[in-house]
Amino acid sequence: MTVPRQLEAIRPLWWNPDIAPHGALELIDQTRLPGETVCLTCTTLQSVWDAIKTLQVRGAPAIGVAAAYGVIVGLDERSPTDETWPDLVDKACDHLATSRPTAVNLFWALGRMRNHARRLADQSWRQARIALLDEAHRIRDEDAAMCRAIGEAGQHLVPENGGIITHCNAGALATSEYGTALAVMYAAHHRGRKFTAYVDETRPLLQGSRLTAWELQQAGINTMLICDNMAAVMMKEGKAQIVITGADRIAANGDTANKIGTYGLAVLAAAHDLPFYVAAPSSTFDLALKDGSVIPIEQRDPSEVRTVMDRQTAPDDVPVCNPAFDVTPARLITGIITEKGVISPVTTQAIQTALQD
Amino acid sequence: MTVPRQLEAIRPLWWNPDIAPHGALELIDQTRLPGETVCLTCTTLQSVWDAIKTLQVRGAPAIGVAAAYGVIVGLDERSPTDETWPDLVDKACDHLATSRPTAVNLFWALGRMRNHARRLADQSWRQARIALLDEAHRIRDEDAAMCRAIGEAGQHLVPENGGIITHCNAGALATSEYGTALAVMYAAHHRGRKFTAYVDETRPLLQGSRLTAWELQQAGINTMLICDNMAAVMMKEGKAQIVITGADRIAANGDTANKIGTYGLAVLAAAHDLPFYVAAPSSTFDLALKDGSVIPIEQRDPSEVRTVMDRQTAPDDVPVCNPAFDVTPARLITGIITEKGVISPVTTQAIQTALQD
Repeated sequence: MTVPRQLEAIRPLWWNPDIAPHGALELIDQTRLPGETVCLTCTTLQSVWDAIKTLQVRGAPAIGVAAAYGVIVGLDERSPTDETWPDLVDKACDHLATSRPTAVNLFWALGRMRNHARRLADQSWRQARIALLDEAHRIRDEDAAMCRAIGEAGQHLVPENGGIITHCNAGALATSEYGTALAVMYAAHHRGRKFTAYVDETRPLLQGSRLTAWELQQAGINTMLICDNMAAVMMKEGKAQIVITGADRIAANGDTANKIGTYGLAVLAAAHDLPFYVAAPSSTFDLALKDGSVIPIEQRDPSEVRTVMDRQTAPDDVPVCNPAFDVTPARLITGIITEKGVISPVTTQAIQTALQD
Repeated sequence: MTVPRQLEAIRPLWWNPDIAPHGALELIDQTRLPGETVCLTCTTLQSVWDAIKTLQVRGAPAIGVAAAYGVIVGLDERSPTDETWPDLVDKACDHLATSRPTAVNLFWALGRMRNHARRLADQSWRQARIALLDEAHRIRDEDAAMCRAIGEAGQHLVPENGGIITHCNAGALATSEYGTALAVMYAAHHRGRKFTAYVDETRPLLQGSRLTAWELQQAGINTMLICDNMAAVMMKEGKAQIVITGADRIAANGDTANKIGTYGLAVLAAAHDLPFYVAAPSSTFDLALKDGSVIPIEQRDPSEVRTVMDRQTAPDDVPVCNPAFDVTPARLITGIITEKGVISPVTTQAIQTALQD
C-alpha cells in the first residue's frame, strides 16, 4: 500500500476524496504494525468508531482528527437532506464521543465540528458539507502545523553524527503528522542532518518497537532499537548525546508526566551530563497543577506485564506494579520544546512567560 | 509434581535414587517455566546432553552439577564391566563437554569426575560407582554450601519491611540451590524477615519474569514483578532501599560484568543514594583483568530484541543493539557479597585481601 507523506514523516490518517461516492477517511491500522502495513478505508460512522475504540488509530491528536472526519463519513452514509443534516451532525458527534470516554482531544474536536455546524444551520447540506470538511481539514492542518513548529523549534538540538534516545511513541502516528519528540528528528532529517535514533522498546506495551521504530524507518532515519535497560550503556559509551521524549501532562512548574520509564531516562541523562528534553504542544501544560505531586498516575492491568502480545512471560498470579506514567521533576529537564519555542531553564516563571506570548 | 527444597529455596536438579534400575538425574525443565512446572527424568547420557544443550538446565554452577551426575547416568546406561568403566567415563565426559562449548563450570566439573575416576582405576565398577556418585554429590554440596555462605554473609543487608530490586536470575535455578543474589534473600527470609523483592523482568530474555519471579514465589517471598523501566520509580517512591544483583565476571579492581541493565540500575541507585550490591562466589573474580575495560561484551542475535517468545514486536529489519552484558564500575558498587564475607568498600586492595583469606 502507499501511505501518504509530507516531507519525510508518515501520516497515520487522511481524507481520500477519490473513494466513491463521497470520499472516505483512510488510516493505517496501528494494531497490525509492525508486522503488516494495512490501510483501512472508513465509509461508515461505525467503522470510524471501531477504529478509535480498538486503537487502530491512537494518540490524542490523531483521535481528534479521526473523529472530525468521522462526522463527515457519518453524514455521507445517511444522505442527509437540507433539513435533517444539523440533527445528524449532533447524532454522529454523540456516537463518536462514546468511543474513548477519557480522550480530551476527541471531545474538543467534536465540539469544534458541532459549533461549526451551528453556524451553518441555515445552509444546504451541499454547502454545509464543504464547510464541515474544511473544518476537519483545518483541525488536521492546525495539528500538523503545531507539530511542525515543535520540530522547527527543536531541530537545532539534534547532534550532527550523534545519537538521540527517545521513549514510547511521540511521533507522527500519534498526531496528524510529525509528532512531538519525533517532529524534532523529522525537521533535522529534512535539513539533511545525519544522526541515529536510539528507540527504547518501551515495555509493557512496546510502543517504541512497534510504532516509533517503524515510523522512523519509513522516514529513512537511522534507527537503532534497544531494550529499555540498554539506554544507560548507550549514554555511557557516548552513542547518544541527548534524550527527547513526549509528555502527557506538564504541571505549572514543569514537572512532566509521561510514559513509565521517562523518569529513569532523565536520571540517567543527568548522571551522564547529557541534556534531557521534553517536546509537547502548549496545550499539554496544565497550569492548574502546581507541581507533579498532584498528577494522578493510572495503574494498569497486571496482565500487561505478565504477558507480551498474548504470550505468558511470568507466573499467572505474580503480583505486578504497572504504573502507566511517571513524573519527571523539572530540575531534571533541560528544556521543554513547544510550538512557541524552547523553554529553558524550566521554571514556573519561564513557563508562564512562554505560554502568554 | 513435587520439587525438592531445603530451607525455603527450590532445587533445579537432584539425584533420585528411587528410579529403577539405578537411580536417575531429575531436573526442572526451565524452558517450560513459568507456564508449567515439568520435571524431567534423565536416564540416558543423551538426555542429559540435550537438557544442557537446550537450556532445560542453565546457569554455570547448575550445568556443572548436571554434567557430573550425567557421567553416572551415562555409565549406568552402558552396564560397564570392571575393565571397561574407566574408558566409558572418559567417553561420557568427552560427549557431555560438547553440549555447551563455552561453559567453564561444565569443563571444571567433568575434569573433577575424570580425575576422581583415575584415582579409582583399579577398583571394581560397583565400588567406583559409589565413589563417583559421591563425587557428584560433593560437587553439588560444595556449590550449595558456597551459595548458602553468600546468603549468610549478606542477609543482614535485607531491610526489614523494605524492598530489594534484583535483575536477571541470580537464583537457585542457576545453581544447585539458593543462588547468589537470591541466596541473600533466602537467608533473610529463613530468619523470618519480611521484605518485598522487586524483580526486573530483564529484557530481552526475561529471566527475571520467567525464572526469578517464579522461584521467589515458590519460596513464599513477597514478589513484585516490574518492567525494567520501572525500577527508577520504585527507588524514587521509597519502595526499594537496596539493589542486589549477581555477576558474570569481576575484574581485579571490582568492575563487574553482569546482565545488560545492571549498570543502569547501579547509576539509578547512586542517584537515589541507595546501596548497590553484587553477590558472587570468589570464583567469579578474574584477577588477570585489571579493570572492566578489558572485559569483552558479547553481542547477541538481533532477533532477541525484535521478538518476545517468538512474537514479532518490531519491524523485521530494524537495526538492533543487543549487548548481553554491561560493566558496572567499582565506584558504583557499595559492596561485593562473597562466600568469604562482604568486600566493602570495593577496591583492588580489599579484593586481594579478601580472596587471600
